[in-house]
Amino acid sequence: MYSFKNDYSEGAHPRILEALMKTNMEQTIGYGLDEYSGKAKELIQSLVGNTNANVHFLVGGTQTNQTALAAFLKPYQAAIAAETGHINVHETGAIEATGHKVVTAKTADGKLTPSLIKEVLEFHTDEHMVQPKLVYISNSTELGTVYSKDELEKLSDFCKEYDLYLYLDGARLGAALVSEKNDLTLKDIASLTDAFYIGGTKNGALFGEALVIIKEELKKDFRYMIKRHGGMFAKGRILGIQFLELFKDNLYYNLAEHADQMSMKLKEALQEKGYQFASDSYTNLQFPIMTNEEIARLEESFRFELIEKIDEDKSVIRLVTSFATTKEGVEEFIKKL
Amino acid sequence: MYSFKNDYSEGAHPRILEALMKTNMEQTIGYGLDEYSGKAKELIQSLVGNTNANVHFLVGGTQTNQTALAAFLKPYQAAIAAETGHINVHETGAIEATGHKVVTAKTADGKLTPSLIKEVLEFHTDEHMVQPKLVYISNSTELGTVYSKDELEKLSDFCKEYDLYLYLDGARLGAALVSEKNDLTLKDIASLTDAFYIGGTKNGALFGEALVIIKEELKKDFRYMIKRHGGMFAKGRILGIQFLELFKDNLYYNLAEHADQMSMKLKEALQEKGYQFASDSYTNLQFPIMTNEEIARLEESFRFELIEKIDEDKSVIRLVTSFATTKEGVEEFIKKL
Amino acid sequence: MYSFKNDYSEGAHPRILEALMKTNMEQTIGYGLDEYSGKAKELIQSLVGNTNANVHFLVGGTQTNQTALAAFLKPYQAAIAAETGHINVHETGAIEATGHKVVTAKTADGKLTPSLIKEVLEFHTDEHMVQPKLVYISNSTELGTVYSKDELEKLSDFCKEYDLYLYLDGARLGAALVSEKNDLTLKDIASLTDAFYIGGTKNGALFGEALVIIKEELKKDFRYMIKRHGGMFAKGRILGIQFLELFKDNLYYNLAEHADQMSMKLKEALQEKGYQFASDSYTNLQFPIMTNEEIARLEESFRFELIEKIDEDKSVIRLVTSFATTKEGVEEFIKKL
Amino acid sequence: MYSFKNDYSEGAHPRILEALMKTNMEQTIGYGLDEYSGKAKELIQSLVGNTNANVHFLVGGTQTNQTALAAFLKPYQAAIAAETGHINVHETGAIEATGHKVVTAKTADGKLTPSLIKEVLEFHTDEHMVQPKLVYISNSTELGTVYSKDELEKLSDFCKEYDLYLYLDGARLGAALVSEKNDLTLKDIASLTDAFYIGGTKNGALFGEALVIIKEELKKDFRYMIKRHGGMFAKGRILGIQFLELFKDNLYYNLAEHADQMSMKLKEALQEKGYQFASDSYTNLQFPIMTNEEIARLEESFRFELIEKIDEDKSVIRLVTSFATTKEGVEEFIKKL
Repeated sequence: MYSFKNDYSEGAHPRILEALMKTNMEQTIGYGLDEYSGKAKELIQSLVGNTNANVHFLVGGTQTNQTALAAFLKPYQAAIAAETGHINVHETGAIEATGHKVVTAKTADGKLTPSLIKEVLEFHTDEHMVQPKLVYISNSTELGTVYSKDELEKLSDFCKEYDLYLYLDGARLGAALVSEKNDLTLKDIASLTDAFYIGGTKNGALFGEALVIIKEELKKDFRYMIKRHGGMFAKGRILGIQFLELFKDNLYYNLAEHADQMSMKLKEALQEKGYQFASDSYTNLQFPIMTNEEIARLEESFRFELIEKIDEDKSVIRLVTSFATTKEGVEEFIKKL
Repeated sequence: MYSFKNDYSEGAHPRILEALMKTNMEQTIGYGLDEYSGKAKELIQSLVGNTNANVHFLVGGTQTNQTALAAFLKPYQAAIAAETGHINVHETGAIEATGHKVVTAKTADGKLTPSLIKEVLEFHTDEHMVQPKLVYISNSTELGTVYSKDELEKLSDFCKEYDLYLYLDGARLGAALVSEKNDLTLKDIASLTDAFYIGGTKNGALFGEALVIIKEELKKDFRYMIKRHGGMFAKGRILGIQFLELFKDNLYYNLAEHADQMSMKLKEALQEKGYQFASDSYTNLQFPIMTNEEIARLEESFRFELIEKIDEDKSVIRLVTSFATTKEGVEEFIKKL
Repeated sequence: MYSFKNDYSEGAHPRILEALMKTNMEQTIGYGLDEYSGKAKELIQSLVGNTNANVHFLVGGTQTNQTALAAFLKPYQAAIAAETGHINVHETGAIEATGHKVVTAKTADGKLTPSLIKEVLEFHTDEHMVQPKLVYISNSTELGTVYSKDELEKLSDFCKEYDLYLYLDGARLGAALVSEKNDLTLKDIASLTDAFYIGGTKNGALFGEALVIIKEELKKDFRYMIKRHGGMFAKGRILGIQFLELFKDNLYYNLAEHADQMSMKLKEALQEKGYQFASDSYTNLQFPIMTNEEIARLEESFRFELIEKIDEDKSVIRLVTSFATTKEGVEEFIKKL
Repeated sequence: MYSFKNDYSEGAHPRILEALMKTNMEQTIGYGLDEYSGKAKELIQSLVGNTNANVHFLVGGTQTNQTALAAFLKPYQAAIAAETGHINVHETGAIEATGHKVVTAKTADGKLTPSLIKEVLEFHTDEHMVQPKLVYISNSTELGTVYSKDELEKLSDFCKEYDLYLYLDGARLGAALVSEKNDLTLKDIASLTDAFYIGGTKNGALFGEALVIIKEELKKDFRYMIKRHGGMFAKGRILGIQFLELFKDNLYYNLAEHADQMSMKLKEALQEKGYQFASDSYTNLQFPIMTNEEIARLEESFRFELIEKIDEDKSVIRLVTSFATTKEGVEEFIKKL
């Protein structure tokens, strides 16, 4: 049964495993202080155009969000997120576990805007309420949408004006950066946000996320926070080696491009057949609306998530493609529509 | 420069990488609900002789301790540990980060005894103090020592009598179980403790720990806790596949045996040369006492940890061997003594 | 300037101070284990019709909510509250500070219903999301509304069916129980909820809330939680003496009745003058809608809260009456309308 | 049965209650923003000789310590305390509840010294361990001892040199400042520490502690922290009024003087009869060592704490005097020796 359930159904791109194999019996220092991790950090600093950026490799996305927000916020401060934001919905309270409220704004496309954030700020007036301090966005979003350069610039300006941190969850940053709707670069993101992470898990790594901290005041003692949250990886070089490989010969972008292309193929076929979509995505997630009957039929041959009931007859499903999605899988799905 | 710094200087045993390679492009469900993880859980249930045991795979030791203790303890309850216990010293307050105090007992060999625990209990008399509820031990300990079956039985009986949970940190369980001083089996441990983990990271896995929960009341909703603490691993099968391989053909024990043998070789050579030891270890850690001059000389050719100053002239160093330690490395070290 | 800002603008009812004066130099045991607190607990047990109820006296409302919810919930569990609920808006993240998410339902009148809760439950499907476990309601609500017996019974049945705890924040329970819309008794509340508190601070005490725990499994070791959260009051008898006095000769109800009568007097006058209300309250809070001009004029002579802008011209204000509100104050306000 | 169990067995000094009575029906703003609290803050600023000091009134000692340390420390930072320190032993893990480890030093007299702290710092070497950042001392200590000016200066210098905060728990600051061994003033303390509190509960107030924050970087947004920890007192003026009264006509010092005199009377009588002491206290706590037989006999007429067994025959008891201790009570005790 072919799976469009998520972008982590397979292992890693073969080059990742080969890189691990090649270096396997070398001795290195632990905890990310090895030479490979060092080189990978430098490479990422150069890719984001900021040699002062702090780069930390963590194992997964929730861990990265939790550790970063716990480090950046004072106890009484809150993160502002879209109601659909991963930290609000799908992290089992990992942010609250560190003592911070997530306050939310309703948004149809999963994206935040200055005016949505302003409403949140105006509601929080004094010390009887939490103090919103960090704006959490994801790119691409949980709905597959992407921020344009203009949108991110406006958010960035707004955050500076209101003394808010801007944090970008890049679990699917690859898929965003190669989307046909994208006009952002890694360098833009590094100059417009205070911290962000480059997702590996969902773009061909075995696992791993590269957190990039730009703002000076957020850098101090971050390794203490990683350890405190159980995220200090003993054989840290495994993360470094993977990111070195991902950013060699454009591999990271190529893998994301493949994922997006497979997704757009699905989208176009679905559009041709007249399906409506719950979100207009140009990345590796598609959200077609289908009758329960159609869904049941497709479930006989494919795995995917059921996202939301629209009414008694119709629901939204989510189709996810990845670096490993095969043309055959996509074509078979299209045939079965 | 050959390293005796720790047991995670290399990658993984080659069979581990091969197993990942072989299954790499298969599609599986995420988050440890895949078939490989399922089989690995069954295998471990059978190895520990308890088909009702709950098995969870986590990425690292601090993460496992943090998640388990946070799940097992009520907010006002504390863990009891040896002063040298990993959770007390080397986890950057990961247990306190979840709201729990670690209360300690002084012990020369890193091991707890009923009488040491009883003292702690007697000190904590009422609701103005934390309530000690869980006994944390490690086997082998941070000092390389191991619990005998008789010692563990006595601890287990005591904990039952005083309604305490007994938790065993098995980061180096392999090294303990094959030590010449050991008379415990996995089955013994499963029948004498309420929960424990089998360490993979320090015994030939790329990474990974298998937490085994025995006591019924500690099992409920544990996966929520894993996710809440950022430990839910997207490509969970990577953990399952590793543990399946580790427990095939006795690999886990063979790797630990190699580590212990290399360590005993060092110990014997050191003893012959008249060195004293800060701990009498029969596992993969050795703690010889050396003059600062000797240490300085050895540091020119080898990497190892400096543990503690004894006086102006002498210090304790720590030598760690692993599945990957070479005979040549050991012999070279002995030659340089 | 007369104040309708809140129900804690004055000290205590004189009988409260006299009771403290009379017992002032007696020696008692600390931390609420004294005879006065004992008697007050028994009195409350008898008033709520449950001699097995656990009664704890705490200093304030946020402290009570925080301590209770932290005690009742497992780390990954969440409270369900109305979006307007005190714990969601006005406690500076005190619940999140203990690691728990507050998930919310939108409701026009500040009250929760089974169907609103059911929606929340259906949204939370698995271990990637928090587990809603406790329903938090307030009576009277933050909007001055009250639950009818029928409504509370339906909530109670629903919570039992879905294995949820039902917790009632009674900061203004006095005002609710004497409202003309009320048909609940303390005994009803004790038989329909799992825990609730009887507010003293906002009904004539110097300070103090009486938490009543009904459900057996929530009682254990609660005093540890009080101390852990900094709420163990050294001279505990001060709380006991106050509650003994409050429930002597119906004082508690008489004070609340006065507050509600003053409020209804304001409401009727406002209605006569044609004002609309943001909430239809029959307790001691009124939410008239006024033009900014009217508000500015009234602010010259009275203190009250500005709650919310309706549009460019109109806003909602909040008028609060208390045990101490004078007829003269109310009449003066009416005159100035 | 006369009680020497603690210094909060009675209510308040009568002048405190009278002050509350006199102002009882005045309307004030809530949460400590009233005029009385304002005046009390100014008075304390002037008494400590620092008009920039931030003064906050809280209800109790554990609450004050918990809120202050949670505000001052970053998540991975720890407090250093004497093993006997209140935060380490008698707060049911209230500091750990906010995520911080308390690391301890052994000390016979309950006092910390630079060399004890230095040992702790040297043990904590890197990000695998917590980062000690705040030195917690109490004056008088839990053993009744006091810091001399010279000792506090040395601690202060050391803390500045090592970039540590110095925090003084003044639950019994009155008893310390009037002790015959004291040479410190409030102004000294304010110039030598970064924050400290002046205890009211144990020196004649109904309840209440005045936290004084000196160091600029610790002041920001502290009221958010008070609210977050459930310590924002609705009728805040009750705290302000009490502290205004306590520092009128030297009342605070007079009350403490009485307590210390009663204590010294006990000490001298005990010394005359040849008793040994577990601590050489010149404040309101005495720790005589007695045979179990003597203790049993005294317990027939008096209440006091049994602190610690010395051996099979002897134990340490604790006698506490207060503003309210009567000469008759003391003389009766002496007669019964």
